[in-house]
Amino acid sequence: MNENKIVKLATDKPLTLDCGKSLGPIQTAYTTYGSLNANKSNAILVCHALTGDQYVASSHPITKKDGWWSKVVGPDKPIDTNKFFVICPNVIGGCMGSTGPKEINPETNKEFGTDFPVITIADMVRAQKLLIEHLEIKKLFCVTGGSMGGMLVLEWLSKFPEMVHSAIPIATATNHSTQNIALNELARQAIMADPNWQSGLYYQSDKTPLKGLSVARMAAHISYLSKDALQNKFGRNLQDKNELEYSFDADFEIESYLRHQGYTFVDRFDANSYLYITRAMDYFDVTASHNGSLIDAFKKTNAKVLCVSFTSDWLYPTSENKKIVKVFNALGLNVSFIEIETEGGHDSFLLNEPKFFEALKGFLNSTLKDL
Amino acid sequence: MNENKIVKLATDKPLTLDCGKSLGPIQTAYTTYGSLNANKSNAILVCHALTGDQYVASSHPITKKDGWWSKVVGPDKPIDTNKFFVICPNVIGGCMGSTGPKEINPETNKEFGTDFPVITIADMVRAQKLLIEHLEIKKLFCVTGGSMGGMLVLEWLSKFPEMVHSAIPIATATNHSTQNIALNELARQAIMADPNWQSGLYYQSDKTPLKGLSVARMAAHISYLSKDALQNKFGRNLQDKNELEYSFDADFEIESYLRHQGYTFVDRFDANSYLYITRAMDYFDVTASHNGSLIDAFKKTNAKVLCVSFTSDWLYPTSENKKIVKVFNALGLNVSFIEIETEGGHDSFLLNEPKFFEALKGFLNSTLKDL
Repeated sequence: MNENKIVKLATDKPLTLDCGKSLGPIQTAYTTYGSLNANKSNAILVCHALTGDQYVASSHPITKKDGWWSKVVGPDKPIDTNKFFVICPNVIGGCMGSTGPKEINPETNKEFGTDFPVITIADMVRAQKLLIEHLEIKKLFCVTGGSMGGMLVLEWLSKFPEMVHSAIPIATATNHSTQNIALNELARQAIMADPNWQSGLYYQSDKTPLKGLSVARMAAHISYLSKDALQNKFGRNLQDKNELEYSFDADFEIESYLRHQGYTFVDRFDANSYLYITRAMDYFDVTASHNGSLIDAFKKTNAKVLCVSFTSDWLYPTSENKKIVKVFNALGLNVSFIEIETEGGHDSFLLNEPKFFEALKGFLNSTLKDL
Repeated sequence: MNENKIVKLATDKPLTLDCGKSLGPIQTAYTTYGSLNANKSNAILVCHALTGDQYVASSHPITKKDGWWSKVVGPDKPIDTNKFFVICPNVIGGCMGSTGPKEINPETNKEFGTDFPVITIADMVRAQKLLIEHLEIKKLFCVTGGSMGGMLVLEWLSKFPEMVHSAIPIATATNHSTQNIALNELARQAIMADPNWQSGLYYQSDKTPLKGLSVARMAAHISYLSKDALQNKFGRNLQDKNELEYSFDADFEIESYLRHQGYTFVDRFDANSYLYITRAMDYFDVTASHNGSLIDAFKKTNAKVLCVSFTSDWLYPTSENKKIVKVFNALGLNVSFIEIETEGGHDSFLLNEPKFFEALKGFLNSTLKDL
């Protein structure tokens, strides 16, 4: 039930993107878990984060590691695949099989590279909607995701409210803060500074911008962890030595850890995808087509919502998640909010957080009574 | 009174560094402001931060901008040059005239490059002590500095307590947190990822690692400002345009600002100096030669101390500055502490902060009564 599937969508009519360009037919790679019930009412769409992919609960084909949310999705897990049919597509712009910069442009028979149009979170959601329609699902039982995944959840609620029965946006925001734009811009500059990037046309070359992408990943990784988590996990511990070496090798464990995060990431991720997806995140503002009004952005949804934030998340702090709660409250919706006390930082939504898992399970079980 | 001077020190005997190597003779570039009084009791040593230099209150020879602390140092300013003789040396390892990787190694008659030994904050202080002795000053009225400058202040109090009458460590810490080591490691990796770095041997080449250094500076700049300051200053404002351009050019003001910070920095700073100085900061632990005991590190000082922190500084937060206050209190010293309420972030010590200026002035004036 959980092998990777690839489907061609928008075959009749290309997708019109926010930038004004057209894209299509588009390819979407996705996984599913569990079984769709007879009236197709038990589907949960899981939206992945910046560097996530469709391997939500199955072994990753490159890293061979467990899926990124295998603690959350599975039989008897918080998102229980005995009850629910879980769908997780790789976003367009991604690099795990969905149409993106490293895929072949049918018009030229060469990789898109930077000919790929700049896409938005709304464009990603438009592509996901085609998949849901392809699966002949009229209404999703729930849409959920953390970080960028949470942005997709919000965009679903805003753009296609009639297709969403409930939603769980996690550790996210209604738009990207200046600090988050700054961190993404840093990452993009690190990639584009690498001469092997070659203006994005590196696919036919034997040189790829691994070093630039690795630096970008290191920057991101620092921002995913809280100051306290870093301090408690690594402190000033030395890496396999008793004394400082007075060199530029990795003396401290934290240095070794970051280098490792950088080196291993480049095996599974495409530098151009990193550029396009961070751009989509920075552009994200769910109110953009509603004159800046959050009320207008969400006024058509009737969904039941659970919002989750984590105390030590400094990228998408509780204050930004509360803005979501506030607008749903103002609209008189059935919205719950939980702030999880943890030092895990932004990454907490990927970690073992029992209270978070309980909240997910509780919300889904109570919502199941609506069926 | 404020032109740049260069002096050769350690001419008889080279400096023995923490790494075990010797360095000397060494060159120190420094500026002075005001006049040394007859009994040489009114000297204030100002210690600069990572990318600072000796141009504390005079026009920078490359950027032509005002000195980095021209708001603080000058006639009738908080550090009043009508009363005090201010000395500011470029640290060894730096790139504004003091012995560092871009200076000529007398043994080879070529630039040091990465043959320069890995230095520590204590080594920088040892070199500063030679300058103070050269100026025939037996006791400094005050030693002050922010960020890395504050580390130098703490090292002075620990290593040469008999030479320091009072001290003002600002926005600093007794050792580098894991998060700060991580951010510096990110910067170093950005520089070393640039093929123009050429293992540090770029001085004779027409290619220098400007892009890597620029990315390093961008990362640092994000960390110097608070999340709120970034949000309030730039928000999601677009740069000279009314609509998103769906490209990878700088759409947002914050992107344009960061790129500018990166581009302009490389004109005045040397990439290898960035490596060496960040390494010294990461290695810094004032208790290193005292078995990890802060009490032992400072037990010989009798100095009067003012500690300053800023509420929105997430690199050297109040909690870390309070550790300094706590140990001085435990030692029964005359120590004052002020936390300045501001959204300016770590950079606040360089900004217009009237309450900070008042605190400096008040402390120095009351300490002046000791003379």
